[in-house]
Amino acid sequence: MTEADGPGPLGGSLFDSRVGLAVRRWCAPVLDLAPHASPEEYLARRAELGFAEVNRRFLAGAGLDSLCVDTGFDFDALLTPRELGGLADATPHEIVRLETLAESVAAELDRPDTFPDRFREALVERTRHAVGVKSIAAYRAGLDLPGERPPDGEVVKAVERLLRGSGGDPQGRRPEHLRIADPVLHGFLVWCAADLRLPVQFHVGYGDAEADLTRGDPLLLTGLLRGLAPTGTPVMLLHNYPFHRNAGYLAQVFPNVFADVGLALHGVGDRASVLLNELLELAPFGKVLYSSDAYGLAEFFHLAAVLFRRALARVLDGGVAQGSWTGADASRLAGMVAADNARRVYALDQRR
Amino acid sequence: MTEADGPGPLGGSLFDSRVGLAVRRWCAPVLDLAPHASPEEYLARRAELGFAEVNRRFLAGAGLDSLCVDTGFDFDALLTPRELGGLADATPHEIVRLETLAESVAAELDRPDTFPDRFREALVERTRHAVGVKSIAAYRAGLDLPGERPPDGEVVKAVERLLRGSGGDPQGRRPEHLRIADPVLHGFLVWCAADLRLPVQFHVGYGDAEADLTRGDPLLLTGLLRGLAPTGTPVMLLHNYPFHRNAGYLAQVFPNVFADVGLALHGVGDRASVLLNELLELAPFGKVLYSSDAYGLAEFFHLAAVLFRRALARVLDGGVAQGSWTGADASRLAGMVAADNARRVYALDQRR
Amino acid sequence: MTEADGPGPLGGSLFDSRVGLAVRRWCAPVLDLAPHASPEEYLARRAELGFAEVNRRFLAGAGLDSLCVDTGFDFDALLTPRELGGLADATPHEIVRLETLAESVAAELDRPDTFPDRFREALVERTRHAVGVKSIAAYRAGLDLPGERPPDGEVVKAVERLLRGSGGDPQGRRPEHLRIADPVLHGFLVWCAADLRLPVQFHVGYGDAEADLTRGDPLLLTGLLRGLAPTGTPVMLLHNYPFHRNAGYLAQVFPNVFADVGLALHGVGDRASVLLNELLELAPFGKVLYSSDAYGLAEFFHLAAVLFRRALARVLDGGVAQGSWTGADASRLAGMVAADNARRVYALDQRR
Repeated sequence: MTEADGPGPLGGSLFDSRVGLAVRRWCAPVLDLAPHASPEEYLARRAELGFAEVNRRFLAGAGLDSLCVDTGFDFDALLTPRELGGLADATPHEIVRLETLAESVAAELDRPDTFPDRFREALVERTRHAVGVKSIAAYRAGLDLPGERPPDGEVVKAVERLLRGSGGDPQGRRPEHLRIADPVLHGFLVWCAADLRLPVQFHVGYGDAEADLTRGDPLLLTGLLRGLAPTGTPVMLLHNYPFHRNAGYLAQVFPNVFADVGLALHGVGDRASVLLNELLELAPFGKVLYSSDAYGLAEFFHLAAVLFRRALARVLDGGVAQGSWTGADASRLAGMVAADNARRVYALDQRR
Repeated sequence: MTEADGPGPLGGSLFDSRVGLAVRRWCAPVLDLAPHASPEEYLARRAELGFAEVNRRFLAGAGLDSLCVDTGFDFDALLTPRELGGLADATPHEIVRLETLAESVAAELDRPDTFPDRFREALVERTRHAVGVKSIAAYRAGLDLPGERPPDGEVVKAVERLLRGSGGDPQGRRPEHLRIADPVLHGFLVWCAADLRLPVQFHVGYGDAEADLTRGDPLLLTGLLRGLAPTGTPVMLLHNYPFHRNAGYLAQVFPNVFADVGLALHGVGDRASVLLNELLELAPFGKVLYSSDAYGLAEFFHLAAVLFRRALARVLDGGVAQGSWTGADASRLAGMVAADNARRVYALDQRR
Repeated sequence: MTEADGPGPLGGSLFDSRVGLAVRRWCAPVLDLAPHASPEEYLARRAELGFAEVNRRFLAGAGLDSLCVDTGFDFDALLTPRELGGLADATPHEIVRLETLAESVAAELDRPDTFPDRFREALVERTRHAVGVKSIAAYRAGLDLPGERPPDGEVVKAVERLLRGSGGDPQGRRPEHLRIADPVLHGFLVWCAADLRLPVQFHVGYGDAEADLTRGDPLLLTGLLRGLAPTGTPVMLLHNYPFHRNAGYLAQVFPNVFADVGLALHGVGDRASVLLNELLELAPFGKVLYSSDAYGLAEFFHLAAVLFRRALARVLDGGVAQGSWTGADASRLAGMVAADNARRVYALDQRR
């Protein structure tokens, strides 16, 4: 339910955190319970309904039109974009995880020096039906990536290090045993995506204990963003908490940078509007997107959507009440953040 | 009254800051003055009553049940835990400052290579009646400490550097002349405490001009926290402002990490609820504690307690008013943050 | 209108950001339009009135008493302090940009080793009628500047590097071709100003895409601020967003440090009071100043002043409503932040 591996013996129940309280408030009614049902009631009812019905209810209740799903992690244990789309009655789209694809290419290599071409070919092939790609550099080498495109020669050396680091002959190596964590490689993958004009998502900030937020501030991407700006490749900064104001700054000053507060949005429960307001201090409304980063628990598809709609309404109605903008502005801005920006940047309408 | 050494000729009175305004608002009545009494009235009345009566009033008025007191700084000029407990009608507990103890051990050494054992013995002895220890690495080498336990050999070398740095023969050296500021030593001290399963407090963030907040972000502790997690040693991140959201993240993802916004709580006066709300975005309610970090002025025992109770009520009542949780939840969560978490983590009930 | 170079094809109109919405709300009426006039109406009316009338209206409407103007950037394209003062009916004062002056001195040098003396002489001459100086180290080498005064020998070596870097003979070189971006030189310039007891402004945080905020956190100045504290030289941290809480901390613990949230103030539109409240958590009211950082668009002289007055009123009235301070306190604190602090620190009354 949180980014913790689990509750510890000292810290009490994770239901006693804002996200847990929000699950009791907003998810319990979807399972026919009263709002604020106790954790015990909640878990019992969830088990009684079974995961298939639980998934169906939360996905259907989220009110989504389209779903962009990162398929690069824990794929065998999760529903596919098509399955999620079916449950949500929404058009599914795929986001290809760069490092997963690159690790799979590296594991199949005859010779390290073929990696750059093999990866470029694989990316074309693999993204034929995808709407974008994702980098998880934040979980590996961190976001302080090179500002220029790494030359193929450097990339090959990095791949040699990667294969040596795995301690054996490249043939027959399973992709999951290779773990890219090298600024040169992360950078190379991003530039390959830019060559295809694919929107590039970056995990930024909030994540689990592996994330190492000391290397997860989006400001560390400044050099790379400067390098990418002339290409016009859309860059999507995902999550960003607690660096979301920094992300808002980047979304303002770089024409191709976008941001969201996904994951944090449901992670902070009833504080979602605070985060959204902070992101929108500098970020233009045309640069902010909705995202749930829902993963694992179906609840989060529903909860993130509910909290986002409430937060956005609070931000925009608050502005109307203060006289900062008009009701007509608020409607228009809501449409941009909730749907139009994503449709435009990911070119979703061309994909239906 | 603040973390400044004193007012400067250019900056005006420190009473004209949020903490000063809060002293006039909440402390003046304890001295029989009207709320918002002028600084002049306040200081005159304080002098008239005398420090003993002032101490008595503020400590008694704080409404404390237990007091955990760091005894490692400026000890001769301050009241002892027992004296503070007597004035507050609260059970006193001691927190042993690691660096102070280590400096005292180092000053008495025959040979540097005996330091590891001497310190381990001294820590057992010195903490026999203590509830925890404290590291002030943030004031010395900074919080970027090694993730693994430093081998004794490295520790000995660091002690040799420490003794050489003091420029003389170790014999007869007074402890106050030795100043530990070495990541290896700070790390060693923490691991020794972990071996005894003692809760380890870290000064984090807000402090005086010596603190150097560029090295005081709690995220810098990520590696060490990963190393300590399997030991189950409770780690208490103290203060944290302006990095309290980062601390909240760490308190969520590491099962043994706890956090407070002490010192900042009274430091920001009527903004205390804002800080507490921000800390509690990610930090579970089972991971957040009360602390005053009161030091020097008796006012702060009272002021921190008043501002904390008001802030916590505002956070929790705000949630009830919004329908985020129930009144019964609010009461339960209040009890956790105000008392139960501290009782559990420091095992206070076993110490009475 | 923002710190972006311009709108991108993907991001929509910059009018759809908080600053753009604030322009429509607060600037439209100054041009005889209804509040919230559409961007099209606004731009048409602005063109119709012409820039001279637009400048006049916004400057006159700002309600300024004094204007401190940095003359070191894009000077030929901008109004002079005297012209701005005339339009605003305010006393103009000059702020001399250190790097611009130093680049001009370096471009005229016979020999690099004469730079330290030449610069010291030029600074005396150039600041005879100025109220302070400004460093843009944040845009060049970043704010991690040396804590001690660099010796002249090191300064000369840095100037040699600067001249060599320009790839040619120093004679006849045009100043705009030299670009100081060296911690030693930035530091030297600041210390020269300190010798003259001139208030030193630092650009901090928020700026355009060239700013590189990874090197723009004011905490990076900690070492230099420690070094400058004994000199009593006032140091003004400008802008600071999103690091304004860090700036507030520095303004509290260093007697000679001041801070504002200029640029961000109008940059975030109706969120200005949030920023001001955050800055004023730790910063004493005697340490916070008003600034617009208006540049380019005359709107910002007006908008920053309107938003600042509203924000300050909201902060101070909010405190009165909560019982945190009295109405008399609020009036007094408002006078400090809005005028008296600037008058005192820049010694404006001695300059009229």
